[in-house]
Amino acid sequence: MIPENVQITNDLSKALDKFFLDQQYSKIAVLVDENTETHCLSILSDLLPDHWLIKIISGEENKNLTTCEQIWDALTKAEFDRKSLLINLGGGVIGDMGGFCAATFKRGMDFINIPTTLLSQVDASVGGKLGIDFNGLKNHIGVFQDPKLVIVASQFLNTLSQRELRSGFAEVLKHALIADKKYWKVLTANDFESQDWQQHINHSIGVKSGIVKNDPFEQGQRKLLNFGHTIGHAVETVHLGLERERLLHGEAIAIGMICEGFISTKKAGLDTNELLEMVQYLKLTYGLTKIGKDKFERILVLCQQDKKNLANVINCTLLKRIGEGIVNMPISTGEVLDAIFYYNQLSDK
Amino acid sequence: MIPENVQITNDLSKALDKFFLDQQYSKIAVLVDENTETHCLSILSDLLPDHWLIKIISGEENKNLTTCEQIWDALTKAEFDRKSLLINLGGGVIGDMGGFCAATFKRGMDFINIPTTLLSQVDASVGGKLGIDFNGLKNHIGVFQDPKLVIVASQFLNTLSQRELRSGFAEVLKHALIADKKYWKVLTANDFESQDWQQHINHSIGVKSGIVKNDPFEQGQRKLLNFGHTIGHAVETVHLGLERERLLHGEAIAIGMICEGFISTKKAGLDTNELLEMVQYLKLTYGLTKIGKDKFERILVLCQQDKKNLANVINCTLLKRIGEGIVNMPISTGEVLDAIFYYNQLSDK
Repeated sequence: MIPENVQITNDLSKALDKFFLDQQYSKIAVLVDENTETHCLSILSDLLPDHWLIKIISGEENKNLTTCEQIWDALTKAEFDRKSLLINLGGGVIGDMGGFCAATFKRGMDFINIPTTLLSQVDASVGGKLGIDFNGLKNHIGVFQDPKLVIVASQFLNTLSQRELRSGFAEVLKHALIADKKYWKVLTANDFESQDWQQHINHSIGVKSGIVKNDPFEQGQRKLLNFGHTIGHAVETVHLGLERERLLHGEAIAIGMICEGFISTKKAGLDTNELLEMVQYLKLTYGLTKIGKDKFERILVLCQQDKKNLANVINCTLLKRIGEGIVNMPISTGEVLDAIFYYNQLSDK
Repeated sequence: MIPENVQITNDLSKALDKFFLDQQYSKIAVLVDENTETHCLSILSDLLPDHWLIKIISGEENKNLTTCEQIWDALTKAEFDRKSLLINLGGGVIGDMGGFCAATFKRGMDFINIPTTLLSQVDASVGGKLGIDFNGLKNHIGVFQDPKLVIVASQFLNTLSQRELRSGFAEVLKHALIADKKYWKVLTANDFESQDWQQHINHSIGVKSGIVKNDPFEQGQRKLLNFGHTIGHAVETVHLGLERERLLHGEAIAIGMICEGFISTKKAGLDTNELLEMVQYLKLTYGLTKIGKDKFERILVLCQQDKKNLANVINCTLLKRIGEGIVNMPISTGEVLDAIFYYNQLSDK
């Protein structure tokens, strides 16, 4: 089931024409970073009415209040009002942060998201999570609000590097792992180079929106989508700003899924053979990145920050089996540490 | 009609007990400024379960992102989560900014507002407008969200200076001017020193909530509440940071109501005698503050920023008569200037 505000299309022009037919906006701006300005803007800009351009610097490390201030300032100087529109053209950072800025500008103006990465097409396109990082904590400040429209247009996938495409693939794999064993088999029947992205985008958005619809504010089942993310987010965060060791989001989530898969065998009944099946495919696709001991402590602290409820207890989403996740499983920092050791020793084999 | 989440009471203890009976919060914090810490906290703190204290510096000039960062930082360090509660104890600045911080912390935690000024009891207590100033523009960044509970407790009025009480009275007068001529007569039958605040609080909240209920996101009739605020906000803003000439919100709104009343006689059919009746009572209550010529230009620019739609057109709320406002009236910067001249010459008489 695809949400009403999401259009998956290979005809961007038609989708936009249809949208603007019913809408009267006082002003329109497109938010880009230097990458989407170079690779994606030319695809979009001729299809739009007159518009302003707001450009920010790419990267998770700029998903912060300082960049929000730049965006709010640009909207203010161009005299945008509540009847104006912001179009967020880019990956998850642009969509999350541009959405947050629009949702809070004069207490809310409309925005559309046009996700340009596989990751943002299958993940950030659904669920209304908007926000920014704060003091190094991911998505710490934000709101829930759906974009007026999300256009998932296949032509933008051609603008991606293989590494970026592979990063997005991690969320596709996650959606199968938490909810659809058959689809896991479909995905892993081929290696990364031979995947049918159109089919996967439809499947992934369907899985995610099915979960979100029943729990929009993440009180319960929506936490299924956090599989791989408790440890994965922490691993991603400690690698931020390290030029050489930089990890893309999906690469960190792949690590997180192996670690949380390992914990699942201890705490949630995941069969060891299924863990090995996961490890094998994730290793083949993403390789293995040894996590330095100097990072352990910060990873543990970050895991606790993420969803901490009680001292030394982290609420985590685990797998009972491939295709079935389980939320609110309490794990200890010791178990996180064991899982990182398990992950690290995989590369010794 | 009083909204469900608003409790007007003279028994704060009972209202809190009733609330906490159904609620389980992981942590609780009270947000105060140096004034409410001194004058109000002792009334509240014994009635609460264990809680943290977050203290900020009072004043509209601190209703900004820097103070939000302090609040978010304090919540983060105390390891608050989505199941925690923030209690905003103070005037409009505390309620608007504390509410905004809570509504965006980890994408939303609960908050209760306990307004301690007459102004915030009759105005900020209803309508879900949260936000902060940005680059000198009032309430430029924010969201709409209702507090879980608003407790309007009469005992806090005893903590106010006469000047603060008089500032809140401006919103009480405004609610009568836009919607209830009979109540205007009730109010103006007595001078400021002899008013029945309990009765007025009930009336004002009733008027405001009736308007807000039909137009929560300010698409139309809610703009009635902006009467006096287009010019009043601008006048307030240009006096910010000027120690000697400092104007309280209601004092600026009183000026705004005279100016916009004057424009109403030109553009909306307000009878000149009714304008004089307004001027007389407002002058008696607030005196007159001559607005310096050096401030004119900034006031005009700010009026345009506030609700600008087209070049040199400002959308303003005016009065057709006392007790009946009209929204979306286009006025020019020239008309604003004439109104300020009219206001200034009142003190020459």
